[in-house]
Formats: sequence, structure tokens, C-alpha cells
Amino acid sequence: MADSPREIETLIGLMAKLPGLGPRSARRAVLHLIKKRDVQLTPLAEAMRAVAETARECLNCGNISTSDICDICSSEKRAIGEICVVEDVSDLWAMERSQVFRGRYHVLGGTLSALDNVGPEDLRIPQLRDRVAAEEVSEVILALNATIDGQTTAHYIADQLDGTGVRVTSLAQGVPIGGELDYLDDGTITAALKARKAF
Amino acid sequence: MADSPREIETLIGLMAKLPGLGPRSARRAVLHLIKKRDVQLTPLAEAMRAVAETARECLNCGNISTSDICDICSSEKRAIGEICVVEDVSDLWAMERSQVFRGRYHVLGGTLSALDNVGPEDLRIPQLRDRVAAEEVSEVILALNATIDGQTTAHYIADQLDGTGVRVTSLAQGVPIGGELDYLDDGTITAALKARKAF
Ligand SMILES: [Zn+2]
Ligand SMILES: [Zn+2]
Repeated sequence: MADSPREIETLIGLMAKLPGLGPRSARRAVLHLIKKRDVQLTPLAEAMRAVAETARECLNCGNISTSDICDICSSEKRAIGEICVVEDVSDLWAMERSQVFRGRYHVLGGTLSALDNVGPEDLRIPQLRDRVAAEEVSEVILALNATIDGQTTAHYIADQLDGTGVRVTSLAQGVPIGGELDYLDDGTITAALKARKAF
Repeated sequence: MADSPREIETLIGLMAKLPGLGPRSARRAVLHLIKKRDVQLTPLAEAMRAVAETARECLNCGNISTSDICDICSSEKRAIGEICVVEDVSDLWAMERSQVFRGRYHVLGGTLSALDNVGPEDLRIPQLRDRVAAEEVSEVILALNATIDGQTTAHYIADQLDGTGVRVTSLAQGVPIGGELDYLDDGTITAALKARKAF
């Protein structure tokens, strides 16, 4: 198309790949950014560069961090006895927004899935077992999505931790069937955590 | 919030200001970008920086460009006798997608609005008069949105060009009442342009 310079077409094309944006909304967003160059476009470019250069996975829990060990894992204020297992960092963020859990996390990076050919080694399940053995863990809270794959994964992990002496619980009351944690309000998550039951 | 590093919170905050995105979709987009750091985040940061450094308004028509005079104004393939007046660059892009107009543009940068206190000097209307006087313009096509402000602006411009000898037309058939150009399909725009009538 001859209608806009190559640099702008490139930017629109990349923006259109973002989840929630398509070609039309990408064009609108780019125009908006160009009109707000100094207060939005330049800061956004800089923020992206900063994240691209610093973001990495926490070596301990899989959370996104800007250091080898994330703020949560390295915080002395977080209980070391409780590990909350989540599928994705977005679920960790959802848990943190509810401000009710004060332990640490373990981010699996997905769920077991026969269809998508995802096995335990593709997730962070072996590392979870290592943490339970190495850290003074008394409880593992399975905060997986209430989907079939999520619950399959929860059962698999519970089996793996059987015999380690750790208490395995799961979020209970309040998580609707088929619901995904990241879509729940803080109150629902709080209620589900408080009413957790032995798995 | 302690749940993610400051650099990531900054990026989420800036992304949430984009039209079409809110806090939730911004978080999802940022997570997506971090997971695709090399193929999406880094290229996007670079594309934004490139646009921030190069994008400017064409001094002639107000189109977004990476040089003082935009590709359309400087193209020898575009008829100099026809100027299509649009409200915004997004409308120019919509016209270009229809590939039916081969003249040049004049981007007003908005519409007259008593409510929002927008007068002719706040738009690029004086410059339009100058172009009609200076360039060999035979026709000015008013491609303004079919809103009240758009049509008020069209009438004002037609008045301003009265006596210059230039033919003033407007998009006619196919533009629905209250419709905005940027939301129309290419075929509608093509039909509206072909059936344009004297204003
Ligand atoms: Zn960590
Ligand atoms: Zn131009």
C-alpha cells in the first residue's frame, strides 16, 4: 500500500499481532500513538525496550522477573512453607491482586495436554518436586484453572507429591466450572483460597 | 503491587492507555510480548522508536509522513488537479484502501465544533485555500464524515471556496447517515466516490 510509510506499516503489522487487536484497531492505536508521540509513543518504545532487555523467568518459580530470582521468591515477608502452583504468570498476577496469599508460587508454564502433546517435562513439574524436597514446604496449593486439562494436571501433581509428606490442597469454593483464574474477581479468588480443601 | 517488576508495571500502564485496550488486555498483551520477546517485543520496541523518530505531518497536506512532504504529495503519479479533503489520517487511509482515488489529499485534523470550541484556524482550512490558489486544482472532493460536525465543516469549506472557480463535490451515494468513513468497506467508498455530486 502506498498510503503510509514503510516504518508505520511495519509498526501496524506488529501491533496487529497483539492479542485483542486486529488490523483496524492496530491502525487506530498507531495513529493515536503518533499523535501522542512525546507522552505515549516514545515512552512506550522505551518501556518495551527496557522489558525486552531485562525480563526473564525466575530460576526458582518461573515467575517473570528482572533478576534471576523474582521479588516474591527473594522476599523475606513471604512464607516459605506454602507454594501455590499456577499454570501461567497471568494467574500468579490474579492471585497477587487478591492479596490473600502470602506464600510463594510455582508457575508451571501450561497444563498437561495429550492433544497438544504436552508432558510433565514440558512443564515445571520436576522442579516443583525438587522444591518440595529442598525447601521447608508444608503445603502445596494447586490453583489451576477449572478446565479438564487444569484438573488433569492437578491430579498428576498430587500423585507426584504423594509420599513426600507435604499437604496438597486445591482452590475450592468459588471457582466456577470451566472458569479461568485470570477472569475472576479478587473476591472470588479470596473466597476460593480461604475455603481450600485437601485434594 | 508486588506482583511484577516496576519495568513491567510501567509497560502495562502505558499499553492500557491505547484505544481498544484496558488494564486486563494490556496485561495479557504484555505477557504475550514477553513470551515472544525476540520475534515480537524487541521488533515492536524498535518499530515504535523508528516511528517516534521519523513520523511527522506532511507540510503540504497534513498526512503522516516520514519526510517533510508525504509520498502522496510528492508522487508524480497522483493527479494534482483533485484534492480530497478528509478529517483525519485514518480517513485518508480508508480512502487509499479503496484504491479508487488517484488525486491528493488535505487532512483537516478534525471538524469545526462549537461545542469543543474548534474553529477554522484550529483545522487546516486556511492552508486548503492557499493550496487551491497555488496549485492547479480543478476539483475539491469533500470526503468528510456524515456527522453533523462533518457536514457543517463541509458547508463551511464550500463557502470558503466559493468564487475560486474550483469545483466542489462531496462523497454521495453509499455513505450512511451518521457513518464514519473509517468504518466503511472499500466497495462503499468506491461507490460513494464514483457517484460524487456537486456540493
Ligand atoms: Zn520466583
Ligand atoms: Zn502530503
